[in-house]
Amino acid sequence: MKCRVCRGQAVIDIRRHNAAFCREHFFEHVQSQVKRSIKTFGMLAPDDKILVAVSGGKDSLALWDILLSLDYKADGLYIGLGIGEYSNFSQEKAEVFATSRGAHLHVVNMKDSYGYDIPQGAVSARRAPCGTCGLSKRYVMNQQACKAGYEVIATGHNLDDEVATLFGNVLHWNLDALSRQRPVLPTEHGFVKKIKPLVRLGEREMAAYCVLRGIDYIVEECPMSEGNTGIRYKEALNEIENASPGTKHQFFFGFLDRGLDHFSEQAGVSAPELKSCSNCGASTTGEICAFCRLRQMATDPERVTVGSPSFRPRRRH
Amino acid sequence: MKCRVCRGQAVIDIRRHNAAFCREHFFEHVQSQVKRSIKTFGMLAPDDKILVAVSGGKDSLALWDILLSLDYKADGLYIGLGIGEYSNFSQEKAEVFATSRGAHLHVVNMKDSYGYDIPQGAVSARRAPCGTCGLSKRYVMNQQACKAGYEVIATGHNLDDEVATLFGNVLHWNLDALSRQRPVLPTEHGFVKKIKPLVRLGEREMAAYCVLRGIDYIVEECPMSEGNTGIRYKEALNEIENASPGTKHQFFFGFLDRGLDHFSEQAGVSAPELKSCSNCGASTTGEICAFCRLRQMATDPERVTVGSPSFRPRRRH
Repeated sequence: MKCRVCRGQAVIDIRRHNAAFCREHFFEHVQSQVKRSIKTFGMLAPDDKILVAVSGGKDSLALWDILLSLDYKADGLYIGLGIGEYSNFSQEKAEVFATSRGAHLHVVNMKDSYGYDIPQGAVSARRAPCGTCGLSKRYVMNQQACKAGYEVIATGHNLDDEVATLFGNVLHWNLDALSRQRPVLPTEHGFVKKIKPLVRLGEREMAAYCVLRGIDYIVEECPMSEGNTGIRYKEALNEIENASPGTKHQFFFGFLDRGLDHFSEQAGVSAPELKSCSNCGASTTGEICAFCRLRQMATDPERVTVGSPSFRPRRRH
Repeated sequence: MKCRVCRGQAVIDIRRHNAAFCREHFFEHVQSQVKRSIKTFGMLAPDDKILVAVSGGKDSLALWDILLSLDYKADGLYIGLGIGEYSNFSQEKAEVFATSRGAHLHVVNMKDSYGYDIPQGAVSARRAPCGTCGLSKRYVMNQQACKAGYEVIATGHNLDDEVATLFGNVLHWNLDALSRQRPVLPTEHGFVKKIKPLVRLGEREMAAYCVLRGIDYIVEECPMSEGNTGIRYKEALNEIENASPGTKHQFFFGFLDRGLDHFSEQAGVSAPELKSCSNCGASTTGEICAFCRLRQMATDPERVTVGSPSFRPRRRH
């Protein structure tokens, strides 16, 4: 297995590109894929102040590393979810990385700052942990970015993540979610711009990147994610990808090229009307935003006035 | 496991319906699902002359049996594909069934009537066998139906088949195919109306139906279908269905309810302009229709004038 660029000994092959790379040219490949996404989708201006959502896992640490190596102004945000040792270890990984790069890491603890943690929130809201977690993180990221004056939030969603989400949205013909499944969501309605610079890179490449760059990340899956449908979709799609490398890429970028337009407002998928949350002021479709309802249920269940426990909030990001 | 209807001993459970049935009420269930499809999608008028495409497999024989038991005027068409013993056995199954029901079966042999068989056609056209077979069968079915004055062609595509096709069309964002993935295609442009009355029934139910009705069908997969992507898609979707029964149904009928309209002509997916094949007169997008090109390549390669060997014809049905 020889490097596509220098014909030296390769350390990784990427079947969907029909290519292998040595260490040095793999880093170049990863950087060039990120640069290509940033350019194609207009993700960043050179001086943007970026807040990277850092979980301590491979994707977010690799993303932060790549953005720093491309000379972007990128700080990190770690959100303490209160998932026992898993949270402790992942926070440590994020902090060690930040220190090693001399980079600034914001740390927000859900319980301290918002009065609940994920295990408790999920039980109180009678909602799946992954849904509770996603809703909480999206809100907190946006609030922290606004507060600290960041222009862009960058998340580590890779090609496998996006493909699994797209598959789920298609399986359920969730038109609203399909209309918003883009690698960039602009600044609007009080939401900070959000970008996914890793959409051209797979899970396996991100793990290899971390290993080869000496980035120590939390390898374990979150202990609360058992039975998560996204993981199941990834397994099903991996089998298809193994037999036909490139299917995932084709599925996702084919969607952006040819599918997405069919779920736009012009195609009759109308965005719901937004109001201001009567509690926190965030844009929402209801009286009280989904996050405030969740938080009320988790911290002060007797005060909950609006919405059923099984509410399905509209997810913007 | 008790029958949902009579609480007697059940012989089959259907997880996506959260129901089990005894023999008698399973037959009722199957019939009612077919009746519901026929009614919902306007598939048949009571006096329609129907030609059932019969392969000798479980789906087509079950379909023929159900249509006869619902008192429709349904004859069968068996197409001899020339796939060695597999074809001999499947023809025998179709003939035995027809005799047992006193029903009329047309038999057309590809080699005798069109000058080539599937193994030879696939090699000559340098095309996958399943593609060669599908193209040939669609053409021959339509031609035979026109010739013998049938108003409707009925095929045994079940829910699993339709879901696998939909999945493939979505994976590749094949907008043209998505715009035509409906359980009924009307009579137009010289094509006979085509219906799929089994779309509400799964593969496993059709096998059970045949076993319980004493219908002897060919159990083996076609020996040329190895590596067929449809089979791979079915396996991937089966894993998801096992974990979340009902996902397939939701995917397909959700598409018909909410997705399909987004791939209509109004949504900008325009049907290509049709001309008449200069050889046989059938509607086609090119000078010579895909079937005639295939046939020329298979029977008289030196006469082939139009189209590359790897042509991808537009599939109407």
